[in-house]
Amino acid sequence: MNILLDTMGGDNSPDEFIKGAIEGLDGLEKTTTITLIGDENIIKQKIKEFYNKDLEEITDRITIKHASDVITNHDVPTEAIKNKKDASMNIGFDLLKQGEGDSFISAGNTGAILVGGLLKVGRIKGIDRPALCALLPTIDGQGFMLLDCGANTNCKLINFVQFAQMATIYMENVLEMENPAVGLLNIGSEEEKGTELLKEANKALKEQEDINFYGNIEGRYMFDGDVRIVVTEGFSGNIALKTAEGIGLTLSKMLKEELTKKTLSKIGAGILKASGAITTLKKRMDYSEYGGALLLGVEKPIIKCHGSGKAKDVKIVLKQAEDFVNGKVVDAIKERIAKK
Amino acid sequence: MNILLDTMGGDNSPDEFIKGAIEGLDGLEKTTTITLIGDENIIKQKIKEFYNKDLEEITDRITIKHASDVITNHDVPTEAIKNKKDASMNIGFDLLKQGEGDSFISAGNTGAILVGGLLKVGRIKGIDRPALCALLPTIDGQGFMLLDCGANTNCKLINFVQFAQMATIYMENVLEMENPAVGLLNIGSEEEKGTELLKEANKALKEQEDINFYGNIEGRYMFDGDVRIVVTEGFSGNIALKTAEGIGLTLSKMLKEELTKKTLSKIGAGILKASGAITTLKKRMDYSEYGGALLLGVEKPIIKCHGSGKAKDVKIVLKQAEDFVNGKVVDAIKERIAKK
Repeated sequence: MNILLDTMGGDNSPDEFIKGAIEGLDGLEKTTTITLIGDENIIKQKIKEFYNKDLEEITDRITIKHASDVITNHDVPTEAIKNKKDASMNIGFDLLKQGEGDSFISAGNTGAILVGGLLKVGRIKGIDRPALCALLPTIDGQGFMLLDCGANTNCKLINFVQFAQMATIYMENVLEMENPAVGLLNIGSEEEKGTELLKEANKALKEQEDINFYGNIEGRYMFDGDVRIVVTEGFSGNIALKTAEGIGLTLSKMLKEELTKKTLSKIGAGILKASGAITTLKKRMDYSEYGGALLLGVEKPIIKCHGSGKAKDVKIVLKQAEDFVNGKVVDAIKERIAKK
Repeated sequence: MNILLDTMGGDNSPDEFIKGAIEGLDGLEKTTTITLIGDENIIKQKIKEFYNKDLEEITDRITIKHASDVITNHDVPTEAIKNKKDASMNIGFDLLKQGEGDSFISAGNTGAILVGGLLKVGRIKGIDRPALCALLPTIDGQGFMLLDCGANTNCKLINFVQFAQMATIYMENVLEMENPAVGLLNIGSEEEKGTELLKEANKALKEQEDINFYGNIEGRYMFDGDVRIVVTEGFSGNIALKTAEGIGLTLSKMLKEELTKKTLSKIGAGILKASGAITTLKKRMDYSEYGGALLLGVEKPIIKCHGSGKAKDVKIVLKQAEDFVNGKVVDAIKERIAKK
């Protein structure tokens, strides 16, 4: 398979994406290739700089596709997708659509990725709305999927059901979870909680035979590992995701401050570091260890890499893209949901 | 002043509430008294057991008001407030209404506190809907107020404006913050983000002269201390609050696990503990250090103590109740908002 990698649009573009691709090759199947999309001269020059070799001397599994423009976070998504034809992200979508790649990864403007996924790649027939899906940590280390995280601020009943079904297929086919439990994000666990739409969604999800419905779940219990999928409207999903990120970052900062404030603390922290506890803790807390955010419900596998992604994150997302393709998620969605 | 304290309905009732009251007296003004509401015999017996003295021998600033029933978390709020006339929470609301107390604290059923506050104590004339307001940690230790956290799942424009105004008064009068910045919780910082209602709310908040509007704020940045008030609808507020609690608890558990997994880690953790870093960190992360959740927009100060509250939390909330009364928040809301 061939994975299309947008080297632009991230905070650490293109350096960390080039490094991630070259260093990530070993973790992928031998037949998997990568297309780096970005300014050809810059990419070549950077490779020379980082590895003191030309790309051809390093590997024949990576090629470069030139793109002279970039979609930034300041661009208006619809306009950028329509007008910036030479932007790396647009070229990525075009290649994906034309079948020159099996999966597309970008760390750029999330709104533009959603618009491009919808308009250029297209939603799967029968899927009312695609969803942006984040993978978040749980205490047991297996993680869970939260969707929708911002693609749809207003949802209909069918969206909740299809979100649950699509996520179930992903968790089964890609993460090999059996019969993953699905929770409906709500302000209480009782069936009669929340808005009218959520009460109906609770009923509709309970009636589905192809999902394992757990019931309503509060934000507080999402990280316990009792459910592997949490479905919600894009607005509340985005709030939950960003709040989790925010409190995670805040607690990390506080931890760092406290570990370096006094000499005695520094000694304790040094011993903890030597024991490996700090590294393990960081790994467990770090949601980028779980991969990027997926766009489910479109015709091809598309992954949004974290905007602040570094080479190590790019490596994880490349592996995730390979698994996404191998899991035949798009085909399964077409067969099991869209054809109904 | 007299503070009414419901000793029932919490996870650690009545023990921790009795202890919190007796041990919290020193932190309050000498003229402040407390009424403990609960089973008189049990309270007397517990005091004897804990302090080997009768209440009269300990202090004359605490009295007991007998209540033979309890509202539990399994009770349906409206029914419990209507029918369980002898429940400690209902007696608390009655005493507050009758002027036999200046403020009421309960750790019981949140829904029942909202219903009781509305039906028994009553909303301030001119305030469309009261809000449940949580105080959450920021990196600088000053905290911020998130409202509404679940009292109103569907809001109108006026609610956003009044939430911002009421919270501003509280932060100024009680926490002595000058001109606290108000953010509108949204999925992006740009004005045109979010639902139609949120776009209108953004415009309406910008036009208010009595608040310091910061603009939209994402969940990710709430904890940075750039804003002191975050307004939102009750549904998303509840999701944000519970998600923050959930991720906080999860990270604490992970930290604890990593600090005790290996011998070397235990040694490092022991040194960190001795340095005071662990205690300080716990304190900074612990939202109960910031007090309980407030009900703003009703005729009297009402505070919801955390359900899992212990004596140390009760002490903090008692002080908070005293500050709430001294800050004349209800009067200021009447004068500055409701009379407009």
